[in-house]
Amino acid sequence: METITSLQNPKVKSAIKLANRRERRSQELMTLEGIAELTLALEGNLEPVQLFFCPQLAKDTDQGLLSVVKNRGAEILFCNEAVLQKLAYREHPDGWFLVARQPRMTLQNLELRLQESKEPPFLLMAEDLEKPGNLGAILRTAEGVGVHGVFSLDGRTDIYNPNVVRSSKGTLFTLPVVESTNEEVWEWIESRGITVHAAIPEDGVSYWEKDYRGPTAFVLGAENEGLSSFWKTRAHDRVYIPMVGRVNSLNVAMSAGLLAYEVRRQRSLFL
Amino acid sequence: METITSLQNPKVKSAIKLANRRERRSQELMTLEGIAELTLALEGNLEPVQLFFCPQLAKDTDQGLLSVVKNRGAEILFCNEAVLQKLAYREHPDGWFLVARQPRMTLQNLELRLQESKEPPFLLMAEDLEKPGNLGAILRTAEGVGVHGVFSLDGRTDIYNPNVVRSSKGTLFTLPVVESTNEEVWEWIESRGITVHAAIPEDGVSYWEKDYRGPTAFVLGAENEGLSSFWKTRAHDRVYIPMVGRVNSLNVAMSAGLLAYEVRRQRSLFL
Repeated sequence: METITSLQNPKVKSAIKLANRRERRSQELMTLEGIAELTLALEGNLEPVQLFFCPQLAKDTDQGLLSVVKNRGAEILFCNEAVLQKLAYREHPDGWFLVARQPRMTLQNLELRLQESKEPPFLLMAEDLEKPGNLGAILRTAEGVGVHGVFSLDGRTDIYNPNVVRSSKGTLFTLPVVESTNEEVWEWIESRGITVHAAIPEDGVSYWEKDYRGPTAFVLGAENEGLSSFWKTRAHDRVYIPMVGRVNSLNVAMSAGLLAYEVRRQRSLFL
Repeated sequence: METITSLQNPKVKSAIKLANRRERRSQELMTLEGIAELTLALEGNLEPVQLFFCPQLAKDTDQGLLSVVKNRGAEILFCNEAVLQKLAYREHPDGWFLVARQPRMTLQNLELRLQESKEPPFLLMAEDLEKPGNLGAILRTAEGVGVHGVFSLDGRTDIYNPNVVRSSKGTLFTLPVVESTNEEVWEWIESRGITVHAAIPEDGVSYWEKDYRGPTAFVLGAENEGLSSFWKTRAHDRVYIPMVGRVNSLNVAMSAGLLAYEVRRQRSLFL
């Protein structure tokens, strides 16, 4: 098998271009790196296109995983360290770098998940987050706590940003994550009778005081600006996370995790 | 006032050296950047030594804050953009870079905080964390939720690492954060009758099922390795955070936040 050694190789150049949001969007492709993330994504609906694999960087060749990726339809491209280092975002890449189709989850995917579930709808909505790491951290926690789906609303950060992908730990492929507009999602939410709780610092009641056993969604705003008036006016109520120190805000991913785990607590103990 | 423009300036060179852990330790100094973090730290026990200030990068000169820093005993050094960029860790520095004394909180500081408090002891202990960002995130949340203090035990990462300082948002100066050994802390904990709950994935009972209204400490282990046998054998019980997805672990800072907010919930509603 031939080994790619040139950064000028057209396939390498195409893959590098996927660091650009517009390029990702027009090609409907994304990138994913690391054996742990790849393994988890393969448990979900990952559609691999091209695997760049560097045996020198990989701890073991893992023929099994190479075959799985190949059988799922990907072209396997061996490359040297220089090429993989150029492609990778992380400091110490482990030899696995994949180009894959964007999963492009829709409201229909989410509907399906809701129908399969034994519990009332449980959703997180993040409006216009700025930092990819925060959006990815929300996805990772959302998957762990058993949220049915996450909406990324009017996002500055697309969910296929490599830093979202990295911090989400592959959960983009196992969790319905829907990019949409405030208007479209509000209409859908309303037609299903889901209660929207807006997370707003020091406004409303503490998040422990609400009942989340029925159909529940939380909406959280951007790191600095908070929620837009769109959600402030439409949400059914407002909840805050009590703070007793001098710090005036929690990290948005931390807030999302606290709210989501309160739902899980109530439903585990009282449903 | 003279403006420093050379990276060879001895004061600049000394400040750069503080990126090194051994250097920080031997000089008992640390660095801190950004007006927001600096402002919060000044509300705490910050002892500024030298302020590098670049008017070109600062949004406004903020004479008031400059005076405060000067009155707290710091030397004010004006510098150009090149010098501040070299000193700073963040991508877009805002013109403020401070050298300060390490607060070096001790068990005595923590004792004082416990005596002042109206509620039973409430502590977080992190053993040997690898990622500075996680340790900083724990401090930020701990301050917000009203923990009395945080122990960093046998740490690979010192609490004065610039990435800990950055993600902790200045809370290193308002919260007792004590670096110590497992042995010393265990002895102190035991003598005060504090219950230690070890956070261990899928072991023990879910964290909602314990009563945290009495003296409470959680101990969390490293990102990959988890807790050492030291705490596994000594902890009074084990709690886990329920997970229902395919992801096998939460981020350690997220876990710490969930555990700490369950204490706050119980004490707010039932104490």
